Amino acid sequence: MLSTENYRKAFIEYLDEYSEKKEPRNLYEPIEYILRLGGKRLRPVLTLMTAEIFEGNYNKALNAALAVEVFHNFSLVHDDIMDDAPLRRGKETVHEKWDLNTGILSGDTMLIMAYQLFETYEPKIFQALAKLFSKTALEVCEGQQYDVDFETRDDVTIAEYLKMIEYKTAVLVGAAMQMGAIVAEASQECQTAIYEFGKNLGIAFQLQDDYLDAFGDPKTFGKQVGGDIIENKKTYLYLKALEFSNEDDQQQLQHLFSVSPTDTSDKIETVKQFFVSTGSAEATKKAIETYTNKAFSLLEDLKVSEESKSMLKQFGETLMNRNV
Amino acid sequence: MLSTENYRKAFIEYLDEYSEKKEPRNLYEPIEYILRLGGKRLRPVLTLMTAEIFEGNYNKALNAALAVEVFHNFSLVHDDIMDDAPLRRGKETVHEKWDLNTGILSGDTMLIMAYQLFETYEPKIFQALAKLFSKTALEVCEGQQYDVDFETRDDVTIAEYLKMIEYKTAVLVGAAMQMGAIVAEASQECQTAIYEFGKNLGIAFQLQDDYLDAFGDPKTFGKQVGGDIIENKKTYLYLKALEFSNEDDQQQLQHLFSVSPTDTSDKIETVKQFFVSTGSAEATKKAIETYTNKAFSLLEDLKVSEESKSMLKQFGETLMNRNV
Repeated sequence: MLSTENYRKAFIEYLDEYSEKKEPRNLYEPIEYILRLGGKRLRPVLTLMTAEIFEGNYNKALNAALAVEVFHNFSLVHDDIMDDAPLRRGKETVHEKWDLNTGILSGDTMLIMAYQLFETYEPKIFQALAKLFSKTALEVCEGQQYDVDFETRDDVTIAEYLKMIEYKTAVLVGAAMQMGAIVAEASQECQTAIYEFGKNLGIAFQLQDDYLDAFGDPKTFGKQVGGDIIENKKTYLYLKALEFSNEDDQQQLQHLFSVSPTDTSDKIETVKQFFVSTGSAEATKKAIETYTNKAFSLLEDLKVSEESKSMLKQFGETLMNRNV
Repeated sequence: MLSTENYRKAFIEYLDEYSEKKEPRNLYEPIEYILRLGGKRLRPVLTLMTAEIFEGNYNKALNAALAVEVFHNFSLVHDDIMDDAPLRRGKETVHEKWDLNTGILSGDTMLIMAYQLFETYEPKIFQALAKLFSKTALEVCEGQQYDVDFETRDDVTIAEYLKMIEYKTAVLVGAAMQMGAIVAEASQECQTAIYEFGKNLGIAFQLQDDYLDAFGDPKTFGKQVGGDIIENKKTYLYLKALEFSNEDDQQQLQHLFSVSPTDTSDKIETVKQFFVSTGSAEATKKAIETYTNKAFSLLEDLKVSEESKSMLKQFGETLMNRNV
């Protein structure tokens, strides 16, 4: 087994080879651009690592890992259009650098290219990968739709919110790992366990993202601290604060989340105080822990070496102890 | 074997069952809407017909036929956004009736749903269908990009134009038929022949669309006669007229295709006269005939019954004798 860093290096090397200079350039140049913008490459690294955990060779999993990364970038390109985001990883988004139509069409192309990457596998593995991929991709689209729907709804429940982040973010982490297991021809039981491990870790990760957005260290947190509060995003922190508030506080909080003042610092501070005083901040930390522990407990019965288990646990801990 | 009309009926019945009331509604309602807008259902009918021509059962081909139709409608939804089209089949387009984001996300979802429809087939057939589908879908995206690129180019060649319509329109007709052959487990040789038949017929069909846009009967032609001329579209008629013109006429024609007068009837008449006087109209009719004959000649060596051959030929002739 390699270290996480070495799986990442192997993946980036493979990704670099992937960019042939395909025609028409106006279609494929934006694809090369977004795929090279960087990022942590978490999902494909998980695919490679999981393949070796189940005694496969990571080289055989490179195309599956690449499919996951190409799909993830497809979703970023289309999401950035929908959010009208000007920047992605500090660089211009595709629809900003080119235009709307290029963003749509290059995104579509990436979704198809992701499926094509499975074609090197023999029919049974191909079908297993493509099936899992389609199911996951649909859920990601559904999650995005729920996210959009929630913007204009005032009655979003915690359960609905959790389903939304599960679909929008967590299932792809689970699927990335299961694909490694499929390539390594692991049993169905092992596949399910590792999928659930990744999914629960993915939920914990997203909840932590919510938490850090309000309480992260501005020096190390990659995004603007308070960004979700400025955008009136109904995160776990917000929904829990509402749940724990009396009627007066609920009204005040809902009012705060209906305005967009030019000077945002006051609003951010007031909302954060709500998050702390209601116990929502604490409850969110607890939920992160619960999902992380659920993920770790799934490792116990997993039929892999102790070394592999501790590697997965370490990976999870690094992810959960980040402050960026 | 059923008649074309009966294959269409069987397909529409199957399509009607396909619409479960899936959640979230804001994602799936637009999909049900566009799939029910109607249309000739040419491509799925060809899939069913081809399956039976190669001695398969059309029932087994229904999911493949549906995948083709769902994909075709995905491309309509995204193309309508790119063309900013308000109407499709006389009804509001998806991004008009809902909004841009819904058009993008529902389109993405349909592309994934198309792949899922292959999942009922056993692994080898699944892989063959998905491979052909991905190759075709990529070409359709590339064709759309060439079409966009051509709008701002003054040096488009006839060969480039033919490649564009081949990718954007014709390959999906070929693929629809080959999918029927794959499901019927026809030989690779038969698959290639029927793909080429469909592709050449598809090119002839698109060239005829160009021709009828200028010379069709306003009473029976579905779209506005002269629409391509109004939009300065560089069709086969236009490119051939340029090729056959002297320098003066070329300049005049290029000028006509750089302006957008409010009263379009003069422009349409002048351009049509150019198309006739240069011999471009005649050359386009010839090209339609050439591609149609190429398609028909591919039938000669095909190892299917004479009845099947004459059915395919009749289908092609009906398609080519349309004036709508």
